[in-house]
Amino acid sequence: MTKSNRQLKIGLELVGAGVTQWRFPQIPVDASTNVGYYTGLAQLAEKGKLDFVFVADGLHINEKSIPHFLNRFEPLTILSALAGATKHIGLTGTVSTSYSEPFTIARQFASLDHISGGRAGWNVVTSPLEKSALNFNKTIEDHPDHPKRYRIAAEYVELVRGLWDSWEDDAFVRNKETGQYFDPDKLHTLHHKGEFFSVQGPLNIARSRQGHPIIFQAGSSDAGRGLAAATADAIFTSSQTLGDAQAFYSDVKERAAALGRDADKLLVFPGVSVIVGDTEAAAEQEYEHTLSYISIENALDYLGRFFDHHDFSQYPLDDLFPEIGDLGKNSFQSVTDRIKRQAKEQNLTLRQAALRVIAPRPHFIGTAEQVADGLQQWFEERGADGFILQPRTYESFESFVEKVVPILQQRGLFREDYVEDTFRGNLGLEKPENRYSAKRLQKPAVQLQA
Amino acid sequence: MTKSNRQLKIGLELVGAGVTQWRFPQIPVDASTNVGYYTGLAQLAEKGKLDFVFVADGLHINEKSIPHFLNRFEPLTILSALAGATKHIGLTGTVSTSYSEPFTIARQFASLDHISGGRAGWNVVTSPLEKSALNFNKTIEDHPDHPKRYRIAAEYVELVRGLWDSWEDDAFVRNKETGQYFDPDKLHTLHHKGEFFSVQGPLNIARSRQGHPIIFQAGSSDAGRGLAAATADAIFTSSQTLGDAQAFYSDVKERAAALGRDADKLLVFPGVSVIVGDTEAAAEQEYEHTLSYISIENALDYLGRFFDHHDFSQYPLDDLFPEIGDLGKNSFQSVTDRIKRQAKEQNLTLRQAALRVIAPRPHFIGTAEQVADGLQQWFEERGADGFILQPRTYESFESFVEKVVPILQQRGLFREDYVEDTFRGNLGLEKPENRYSAKRLQKPAVQLQA
Repeated sequence: MTKSNRQLKIGLELVGAGVTQWRFPQIPVDASTNVGYYTGLAQLAEKGKLDFVFVADGLHINEKSIPHFLNRFEPLTILSALAGATKHIGLTGTVSTSYSEPFTIARQFASLDHISGGRAGWNVVTSPLEKSALNFNKTIEDHPDHPKRYRIAAEYVELVRGLWDSWEDDAFVRNKETGQYFDPDKLHTLHHKGEFFSVQGPLNIARSRQGHPIIFQAGSSDAGRGLAAATADAIFTSSQTLGDAQAFYSDVKERAAALGRDADKLLVFPGVSVIVGDTEAAAEQEYEHTLSYISIENALDYLGRFFDHHDFSQYPLDDLFPEIGDLGKNSFQSVTDRIKRQAKEQNLTLRQAALRVIAPRPHFIGTAEQVADGLQQWFEERGADGFILQPRTYESFESFVEKVVPILQQRGLFREDYVEDTFRGNLGLEKPENRYSAKRLQKPAVQLQA
Repeated sequence: MTKSNRQLKIGLELVGAGVTQWRFPQIPVDASTNVGYYTGLAQLAEKGKLDFVFVADGLHINEKSIPHFLNRFEPLTILSALAGATKHIGLTGTVSTSYSEPFTIARQFASLDHISGGRAGWNVVTSPLEKSALNFNKTIEDHPDHPKRYRIAAEYVELVRGLWDSWEDDAFVRNKETGQYFDPDKLHTLHHKGEFFSVQGPLNIARSRQGHPIIFQAGSSDAGRGLAAATADAIFTSSQTLGDAQAFYSDVKERAAALGRDADKLLVFPGVSVIVGDTEAAAEQEYEHTLSYISIENALDYLGRFFDHHDFSQYPLDDLFPEIGDLGKNSFQSVTDRIKRQAKEQNLTLRQAALRVIAPRPHFIGTAEQVADGLQQWFEERGADGFILQPRTYESFESFVEKVVPILQQRGLFREDYVEDTFRGNLGLEKPENRYSAKRLQKPAVQLQA
């Protein structure tokens, strides 16, 4: 990928009942578990030639959780359902490495990759909420602390990649004449024994079309960046300004290069909210309209979620953001640091800080040209290799596909149509060679030299 | 369900690379991970108005495993994919209670039930193969013994049913005007603490259309029957003769009744192999043809799988079945007992016993009329409430749909078309009432009496 033909990549986060969106008249009330609604969004994304859809996840709720968290599809099942309703678009879902089994997750993503013809992506998270432990036969004290969660994740991902190499690409000879089903030399048992996991293998499914499904990583803390630099194909990050995005971008690219990787093969995707209007004023009006659905009580509950469900209603709303110490440090470390830093730097009241968190001003808002300009700037000035769109409404996304995408295409920044036949191909990433095939190919050369 | 309108139920086991089938010229070589092949079978089953398709599973392979085990879809992902390609048929898959998390499995089946509009079924197994432990951070010694596996399963299923009741059916009021998303009185946190599991809840997905997805149970040992009688909606069993089937049928029905259940609400499904020919001779010829694909080496390997991968090639093929003690007792208890008993009763050689296990004579073989007669007899003489078809070829199943189903319909034994709109409804089973709603309804009556 030379600089001249560098193209931006676009994903769409699928959300059924966002904080305010569920109240919009246009959205079906049951959108968050309405397969037709999800299918419609995925097909619209494919119409726009987008790279992938994205399904986030979480493992603990209580009565204060936001609507979308209370009632949503489990990612692997909804992505498998979407595979049949789409042809080209990548299917990425979040699964935690803290509360799942590597053998099962390796299988399920490989199976999704087979089902979708090479379109599976796994967003690796470590479960920030310590109460998740209570749903998985553990106590809050068992919830691993932040650094340990990332050590677990690093071993987990490497182990899953090993299981994905259990069978070489051509292991299944399936000769109907002779009855030979597979070549035993091309079946490999991993025998992984590490600090946290002991998994023998082999995996009971053939290597899939992508070899390894795409690995996203979504933590922006120091440990999260380190994990991404070492193991990920892509990062789902969150930056409010171009400056922040550039700082993050250059940091993770440097980390990847320092580990000997080609930094161009680690793609950075900030999640961005977008509102597209026929005029700038219309877009602003739409944003104001979304705010009208938010109560300050909801905003405080949502804010509290990042700080171990701290009760912010105890503080005066219009005083400066309260001093709350290290709450949330072990959960959403990078988010809570940012909220506290911005509140301090900008002298925000609690009310202002809470509203900014639950409904921040969209990253890109205005006419289609203006939104395209913003995306292009972030892309060209190295704040992003692509974006994960978090549109405020279905109509916002429809406008994006119908009005912004054609502009990006005219500017040569985005594909006119799908050319590659896998998600990996669309992202411009090579299929990883099977670790055992690689060794096999090296062996004869060594022997010849001996 | 009165006796007069009792109708038989039919499922289809989906297999992509059965022991001999993969060699048949008509079957795509990659059938076991070919979503088009699976979709075609499921759609054909729906054309035949069948109740459900069934995806089996296993968690450990080695180089001696049969082709279908080496490389197959993970059940929840393929069933989710099939949901979109079908409209009426139930989608049942195997998941082990020994190597999975109840919170995750409750979510995934609830999600599948939402995705499919009420067609999910879970076949509960306990993982007979002790080496499964090696893929799940455990040692062979950790693999729970047979009775313990069933105690774990009983607690697991009850706990999952509790999670499925986290939200009452009408909990999500979703009032767009007022902004009320749910009724907090109808959200329930399970707080399960049992012998094996501690799971807080609530589940992060609404109660699904079936309330509880259908629960199958597939162990035929004493412990398996007990579990089925206590918790299952249906049993997937295995009987070679009508007599065996009747004995099993009456035993589990009595067990269910003894526990205070309506025995008609525990459906018994023997897995049956079927070959339908234009003539009796043609059917016999097809059976002979399938045998021609089996080598005695494959047969001995397959036999060994049930006996802790015991190496049977060390014994003379044409001597009587060897004395092997309790091998396999902790894995496939009921299967190994039956193999040993039959070998003894019928003076079988090792060769004969091995071939009977890998490719038993079909339960029902002959013309469409003869096959329909056989099914009707098992059904009416109380050996079965329905059947899970294990056809030998795609053509076998096509013949079944085109020739046997119409006969069963003419005889009033099988539906002409789908009438109910859920899998549960098709099976004639009621939607379970939410445990908390039930309590709520009882309360006022008690207060009035006081």
